[in-house]
Amino acid sequence: MSTIARRGIHCLQRLNSANVSAALLEKGQNRVIDASLTLIRERAKLKGELVRALGGAVATSSLLGVPLGHNSSFLQGPAFAPPRIREAIWCGSTNSTTEEGKDLKDSRVLTDVGDVPIQEIRDCGVDDKRLMSVIGESVKLVMEEAPLRPLVLGGDHSISFPVIRAVSEKLGGPVDVLHIDAHPDNYDAFEGNIYSHASSFARVMEGDYVRRLLQVGIRSITAEGRAQAKKFGVEQYEMRTFSRDRPFLENLKLGEGVKGVYISIDVDCLDPAFAPGVSHIEPGGLSFRDVLNILHNLQGDVVAGDVVELNPQRDTVDGMTAMVAAKLVREMAAKIAK
Amino acid sequence: MSTIARRGIHCLQRLNSANVSAALLEKGQNRVIDASLTLIRERAKLKGELVRALGGAVATSSLLGVPLGHNSSFLQGPAFAPPRIREAIWCGSTNSTTEEGKDLKDSRVLTDVGDVPIQEIRDCGVDDKRLMSVIGESVKLVMEEAPLRPLVLGGDHSISFPVIRAVSEKLGGPVDVLHIDAHPDNYDAFEGNIYSHASSFARVMEGDYVRRLLQVGIRSITAEGRAQAKKFGVEQYEMRTFSRDRPFLENLKLGEGVKGVYISIDVDCLDPAFAPGVSHIEPGGLSFRDVLNILHNLQGDVVAGDVVELNPQRDTVDGMTAMVAAKLVREMAAKIAK
Amino acid sequence: MSTIARRGIHCLQRLNSANVSAALLEKGQNRVIDASLTLIRERAKLKGELVRALGGAVATSSLLGVPLGHNSSFLQGPAFAPPRIREAIWCGSTNSTTEEGKDLKDSRVLTDVGDVPIQEIRDCGVDDKRLMSVIGESVKLVMEEAPLRPLVLGGDHSISFPVIRAVSEKLGGPVDVLHIDAHPDNYDAFEGNIYSHASSFARVMEGDYVRRLLQVGIRSITAEGRAQAKKFGVEQYEMRTFSRDRPFLENLKLGEGVKGVYISIDVDCLDPAFAPGVSHIEPGGLSFRDVLNILHNLQGDVVAGDVVELNPQRDTVDGMTAMVAAKLVREMAAKIAK
Amino acid sequence: MSTIARRGIHCLQRLNSANVSAALLEKGQNRVIDASLTLIRERAKLKGELVRALGGAVATSSLLGVPLGHNSSFLQGPAFAPPRIREAIWCGSTNSTTEEGKDLKDSRVLTDVGDVPIQEIRDCGVDDKRLMSVIGESVKLVMEEAPLRPLVLGGDHSISFPVIRAVSEKLGGPVDVLHIDAHPDNYDAFEGNIYSHASSFARVMEGDYVRRLLQVGIRSITAEGRAQAKKFGVEQYEMRTFSRDRPFLENLKLGEGVKGVYISIDVDCLDPAFAPGVSHIEPGGLSFRDVLNILHNLQGDVVAGDVVELNPQRDTVDGMTAMVAAKLVREMAAKIAK
Amino acid sequence: MSTIARRGIHCLQRLNSANVSAALLEKGQNRVIDASLTLIRERAKLKGELVRALGGAVATSSLLGVPLGHNSSFLQGPAFAPPRIREAIWCGSTNSTTEEGKDLKDSRVLTDVGDVPIQEIRDCGVDDKRLMSVIGESVKLVMEEAPLRPLVLGGDHSISFPVIRAVSEKLGGPVDVLHIDAHPDNYDAFEGNIYSHASSFARVMEGDYVRRLLQVGIRSITAEGRAQAKKFGVEQYEMRTFSRDRPFLENLKLGEGVKGVYISIDVDCLDPAFAPGVSHIEPGGLSFRDVLNILHNLQGDVVAGDVVELNPQRDTVDGMTAMVAAKLVREMAAKIAK
Amino acid sequence: MSTIARRGIHCLQRLNSANVSAALLEKGQNRVIDASLTLIRERAKLKGELVRALGGAVATSSLLGVPLGHNSSFLQGPAFAPPRIREAIWCGSTNSTTEEGKDLKDSRVLTDVGDVPIQEIRDCGVDDKRLMSVIGESVKLVMEEAPLRPLVLGGDHSISFPVIRAVSEKLGGPVDVLHIDAHPDNYDAFEGNIYSHASSFARVMEGDYVRRLLQVGIRSITAEGRAQAKKFGVEQYEMRTFSRDRPFLENLKLGEGVKGVYISIDVDCLDPAFAPGVSHIEPGGLSFRDVLNILHNLQGDVVAGDVVELNPQRDTVDGMTAMVAAKLVREMAAKIAK
Repeated sequence: MSTIARRGIHCLQRLNSANVSAALLEKGQNRVIDASLTLIRERAKLKGELVRALGGAVATSSLLGVPLGHNSSFLQGPAFAPPRIREAIWCGSTNSTTEEGKDLKDSRVLTDVGDVPIQEIRDCGVDDKRLMSVIGESVKLVMEEAPLRPLVLGGDHSISFPVIRAVSEKLGGPVDVLHIDAHPDNYDAFEGNIYSHASSFARVMEGDYVRRLLQVGIRSITAEGRAQAKKFGVEQYEMRTFSRDRPFLENLKLGEGVKGVYISIDVDCLDPAFAPGVSHIEPGGLSFRDVLNILHNLQGDVVAGDVVELNPQRDTVDGMTAMVAAKLVREMAAKIAK
Repeated sequence: MSTIARRGIHCLQRLNSANVSAALLEKGQNRVIDASLTLIRERAKLKGELVRALGGAVATSSLLGVPLGHNSSFLQGPAFAPPRIREAIWCGSTNSTTEEGKDLKDSRVLTDVGDVPIQEIRDCGVDDKRLMSVIGESVKLVMEEAPLRPLVLGGDHSISFPVIRAVSEKLGGPVDVLHIDAHPDNYDAFEGNIYSHASSFARVMEGDYVRRLLQVGIRSITAEGRAQAKKFGVEQYEMRTFSRDRPFLENLKLGEGVKGVYISIDVDCLDPAFAPGVSHIEPGGLSFRDVLNILHNLQGDVVAGDVVELNPQRDTVDGMTAMVAAKLVREMAAKIAK
Repeated sequence: MSTIARRGIHCLQRLNSANVSAALLEKGQNRVIDASLTLIRERAKLKGELVRALGGAVATSSLLGVPLGHNSSFLQGPAFAPPRIREAIWCGSTNSTTEEGKDLKDSRVLTDVGDVPIQEIRDCGVDDKRLMSVIGESVKLVMEEAPLRPLVLGGDHSISFPVIRAVSEKLGGPVDVLHIDAHPDNYDAFEGNIYSHASSFARVMEGDYVRRLLQVGIRSITAEGRAQAKKFGVEQYEMRTFSRDRPFLENLKLGEGVKGVYISIDVDCLDPAFAPGVSHIEPGGLSFRDVLNILHNLQGDVVAGDVVELNPQRDTVDGMTAMVAAKLVREMAAKIAK
Repeated sequence: MSTIARRGIHCLQRLNSANVSAALLEKGQNRVIDASLTLIRERAKLKGELVRALGGAVATSSLLGVPLGHNSSFLQGPAFAPPRIREAIWCGSTNSTTEEGKDLKDSRVLTDVGDVPIQEIRDCGVDDKRLMSVIGESVKLVMEEAPLRPLVLGGDHSISFPVIRAVSEKLGGPVDVLHIDAHPDNYDAFEGNIYSHASSFARVMEGDYVRRLLQVGIRSITAEGRAQAKKFGVEQYEMRTFSRDRPFLENLKLGEGVKGVYISIDVDCLDPAFAPGVSHIEPGGLSFRDVLNILHNLQGDVVAGDVVELNPQRDTVDGMTAMVAAKLVREMAAKIAK
Repeated sequence: MSTIARRGIHCLQRLNSANVSAALLEKGQNRVIDASLTLIRERAKLKGELVRALGGAVATSSLLGVPLGHNSSFLQGPAFAPPRIREAIWCGSTNSTTEEGKDLKDSRVLTDVGDVPIQEIRDCGVDDKRLMSVIGESVKLVMEEAPLRPLVLGGDHSISFPVIRAVSEKLGGPVDVLHIDAHPDNYDAFEGNIYSHASSFARVMEGDYVRRLLQVGIRSITAEGRAQAKKFGVEQYEMRTFSRDRPFLENLKLGEGVKGVYISIDVDCLDPAFAPGVSHIEPGGLSFRDVLNILHNLQGDVVAGDVVELNPQRDTVDGMTAMVAAKLVREMAAKIAK
Repeated sequence: MSTIARRGIHCLQRLNSANVSAALLEKGQNRVIDASLTLIRERAKLKGELVRALGGAVATSSLLGVPLGHNSSFLQGPAFAPPRIREAIWCGSTNSTTEEGKDLKDSRVLTDVGDVPIQEIRDCGVDDKRLMSVIGESVKLVMEEAPLRPLVLGGDHSISFPVIRAVSEKLGGPVDVLHIDAHPDNYDAFEGNIYSHASSFARVMEGDYVRRLLQVGIRSITAEGRAQAKKFGVEQYEMRTFSRDRPFLENLKLGEGVKGVYISIDVDCLDPAFAPGVSHIEPGGLSFRDVLNILHNLQGDVVAGDVVELNPQRDTVDGMTAMVAAKLVREMAAKIAK
């Protein structure tokens, strides 16, 4: 629908072929990227100082928005998600206590460093490879400020690749990944795009960033999806057998012997009854309580995570799916914080 | 609805009263604001360089988003408007030519420097007075890069005050303002807030920023609204007499003897039939064609402008009002560019 | 859609045919009706006392809700309208001043005596003829308390018959009626129902309640509709010739030599672009400003009026048509008050 | 959103401070309240006579609407719920038989005494304490007419306090309460309001009205919520442990040794997938079948009940949540009737 | 709502009573019906040729749309369903592989012969009895072209009677029927209509077309519905006992000793949370996964089937229920194909 | 969105490249097309016989639906329009009399021959060139049956080319065309598609089918659009000058000296306030009354027409734009009939 993403590139390509020098363009892009990262750095620094001044926190969830939707194959609405999720987190219709009793108003539990200015950077003609690096750099800037740990708000699922890569590189070793989703997102490439939201976990598995990858909620998978899982040693739990797998999934123990656990939740893991506001309606999914039961009972040191693929353009008028995504973020924040 | 705006402040006030020093906080805020302005500057600079390299442009419209909604008295949805307007401008359902024949894909006609990171700055505890300065500084950074002229995407109407002030200060003298709106927005203060979206034109008139202020489309006005207009010498054209005033309004000549013309369009100037996605439904307004007729026939050098108060949370499912706001922006961009 | 209306009657008819005596039933009905009228009387009395204590009012608009929808031929949603219109009148998105400067918060301008308990009375098995009398009695109870004048909130258009009859009977002579509507509502009977919302103005004209009946906005009319108009001497102004009739309609002078003017506005007089929340979508109607121009410029002593046929079940999610109906009520209240 | 509730009070306070005597005002209020209660009494009496004439009923559910929404902390839509629930109960899309085979068209199973005129009473300046008494009086008037038993349609949850108090006072001793809800609603006061919908069960437990209070479906609870439960001896069953508690909850036996069982169902006990039309979206709730299983299997003499917090302003266009609330009412009516 | 269905008949009756001969009318109807069946035959023939040319298919699902909605008692939207289901089947938001790995893009798995032109035939004045025959003939034309097997897209549930009758007649003996629905649809007649969508399974059981009829998901049933089931030996599984019946229903073995299995899925078998776009909202139903578990685990030779009662006029804006119906069709196609 | 259109073609191409002979495929396509045309012929014949039997009609409007949406550049929803327009024409919310008094229930005024089975033909692999011929043949089959005149229901605007071509060929000479639209639809080709809905009037003008082409409502036009108009001698009336052109356009006299007048109305000629349910939202358009004024006052013999580009997937929930399209069809039918 949205063609905003492609505009910047077209416009600059035209300029290139005219009379703008490549050097001038590259220099400008570098300055814009530097300024973007400086903004993330300064906000992370301020938030880190404040949490440390309060004292006593070992791990604090820190929201980092990545409003990127152009790597979706179908709709691009997830680019609008981060401000809607933040609004829903603090919406007056619910209190600030999580189900297991943590208070989100305590800055030692949850803080926020804002959004990576994705649209602004792309509109300067920066390509996807570099954009992925900027996302990774931003994640590392948050991790620089202990005890902050990144809790990333997508955006489409393509962002999980640079985020997981950055987390692993910063921690100096692989992590275990719990990936809850209707789709395996492990195509080698989707319609030629290696950074597609349908390929992020192929990219993740090609590096040395992950030891175990568990995929839960899967119910839309092709022959290639099963082949790729086999090739990369992915543990797939399909919805067809969920009632049988449930006891195992509600007692997971992950992250021992590696640098910790990363959790990636695609909102479409939920049945569309629970989360209609997604680009890919795939009936037959998890209930919200199923996801919470898996999350609450997981044992392991959660070092970072993401909640992705909320599409506000498909949500109900009152934003029910934004509330659903926000509660996933809230409960994940409580899981990370200590 | 949204309480996102208040969260940052509460959170930091709590920190203050605890054990965080005021100096540390202020220093952090300064660094965040500096980084924000640097990002605007670098983007404006790059876009300016590109347009100048292409050559031949005397005036180029440059979008600057100001996602600020917390100074609304009723709803805060306008904070979500800038990305929706951009999406609609480039949406594939219409071509890129304006009604009078300018091509928006030509970078000499329209460029974009992105958003002022309003939410990020507020979440660091920065107060409204300072926030208004940051908006003004951002406008000046755009004007620094001739031939770029700022076309500001609101946000609520409170932003027109710092924008007009900055335009006048930068140009070194007053401008004429054409203000199209259902409301005069000239309360001395609204519920104690001098920066309210209902008070921006009181603020504007108190300075030396404006010579003539014409208000068109007015149909919700109190005794104070009429008294303030009288006090400040505002020329008000109410809807009650529009059929009589139409010939005058469709032949305006403004800006001579001052630094130029500034146009501020509140989307609710339109009847809600034409623009349902606004916070303040006020039946009996202008048709879209009425506004275009005024705009197309205006004579004068338009130096800057804004389109404000689109509330995407009240829009139709398919974003009709975003398309309406986008066409206002497109036609205003064509009016500015030369 | 709603079958709520028919339920009470069915249920009680069954009881009758069993072993419940007609006397017991009738006695119960009488007591319920008496209690209903007492409630209207007491509220009117209290509001009248308050306005008189304030002093200085010659005519005060007093809202009276009639949540009756079962005489509609198509949908029954207008039964839900009165609370929605009240909500919209006092909604925080607009101020309390009307376009010509009256303040609705002043009780001498506008007061409210609540709703006739239509559903409760019908659910006791009371038939339509008697129900119409109850509505008329309620109107008279309001008029009893000078300076209160009834401004009735429908409900479907069937209510205008008992209201106009009561106004005329109470004042002791005929009135002139300005009826703004897409339909003439003058069938002799509609599908056998003489109290149908499509027949109210046939009923009105059969009595001696009205001298001149002007119908404005007509654009859905059958051969019978034109024949009835001729028979009753109705002055019909069809939309087909509105541009020609406009100067006449924007300079009406009514009510001289009779007891005053009654105004009945069916919300569907407006084009559905301006008022989508109606049961009968009939494109090609008046704009909101057209209606206001007629209303503002009307000369005459407006003794009572109604705004009918808002259907909240067809309104936009944000209640745009409720806001439209509310502004019609607000401006009509200002027209009545003095 | 709605400011209708506050309007009457403001208006009358202004009158007071002017020249209206307190005595006149109080006398008027008393007359309005008396008339309101007379209307309830007469309708209950008629319905009681009819059911007794039919013979054979030991307990008949009798609907009593309480359109009160102003004690909600967030939205006030529940004031619009009672007519929507009635419409859905009798809607032609389903038949009149409940799941366990009772026919709702039989007046010995279900009857209706209409609404308490809440808005009309408040608009006369009556305060909340007195309003609560009027609600309680209305409940007692229904109970006066054996075999009628009150089945109350909210409104927000604040109404459960006066209803349970009245039931207990009328029966002459405490009852057991089954309370199904996402929230414990047991704050001592919420934002200073002791009649808040978030405080009703604190009020209930302070009296001698209840022996056992079981809360089911809880998933939004603060430290105070847990402390209050402990203080009052409330039995809380949180959603976190629902799969474990299910066998117990599907085999409840209540009310022995006290005056019977009262059931209070807040529609938001359901997951928002099943009931989107509520003010407080709290994902992770019960399925509709979960609630029915608890209700159908409950053993005990159900003496009264309520279904509250349907918010029609947040419902789907076709009123799915109204249908859900109606089926809860239908099945509860069948549970009460015998 | 729609009266389109009745128009043709009325119109032609009027013609009859005028001067159009019955013979002329009947001859014309016959020619229109012949042409309709020829169109189905030619499409089935072409598709059969293509599948046979590809080779290797034993059973291929072939879609046949029946856009018939006038036998619904409440709403007539299902007449609009077939094109919406097809759109959702091929919608780009999901891939073409079913949960158990069949590829729908393979013509040997799924093909399509288009719609029976129901509206066109009815508009020529053809009555329901004959219309039912045309539907049956169309089904037989598909079965003529082995390996095609009919997978019928409703339309309302009245179509299952002619379809099952045709399947049984063509195969030369009875089948077992798995009928998943909220309602038993076995009234002797509904409001006098023996072809009502609420009577189709009474019609089916009166013939010799079915050996066993299993009804699953039932939760809206009257005394007559239970009596009819007893009379016809229907095996009813109500939702009240679903948790107990689940193991049995997830291990069905049907069709042995008869001509095979027919599956009829009424979309309202699902809880409205999962399928809001139906005419009869009946809370407390199956989850989507419940239906898939029954379908995937069913053992038996599925010779034909239908998916009915999707009502696009009640669906969400983004067509969630169309996606749900499409996935039911997709998975049923995979069940049939071999 | 919809990929249904492309599926058939892909599927059959695959078959070709495998082992299906081109001859077999072509033969099958021919048989399917023949059957489709036979169905149209038989229905037209029956309707013609009936009208002629009634006697007295000189010209009768006959609806012919063309559910084709795949030649749209943006959305494909117009393929769903014909059944929605028919539903709205006969919807119970309005009577059957047109504004100027013709009764649509009289078969001599309006009859209906149903839809061309576009989707079924395309799904057999038929290409666009041939499809256009089938549409044209269908139009001629209607014209064969005097006094029937085709009133075509789109579908997207690409269908106007084959329809106008067929009308001209059948009448044996050119017609005058009144084309009311936001766009000129005269690109030489759009994205390579010469049958695009944006190119139909380029195709029309290349033949000898049209003498004068008047385009009214234009407000989205590129340089190419203006150049093409010049090249073909098109008379364009842009919205920018509509207030000036109005007197001329409300007094058109067309068709003298040629075979008559053809009227093509694209629903997006209306401002989106009046017709939100279109693919291309283009603010600043005509009001519904503007279009009626042009239509009612047009002098000339209208031999055929079309109403295109209603997109039900973008319409309001209650189908306001379908009602708008239906009234355009109704009034155009009255214009044609005599």
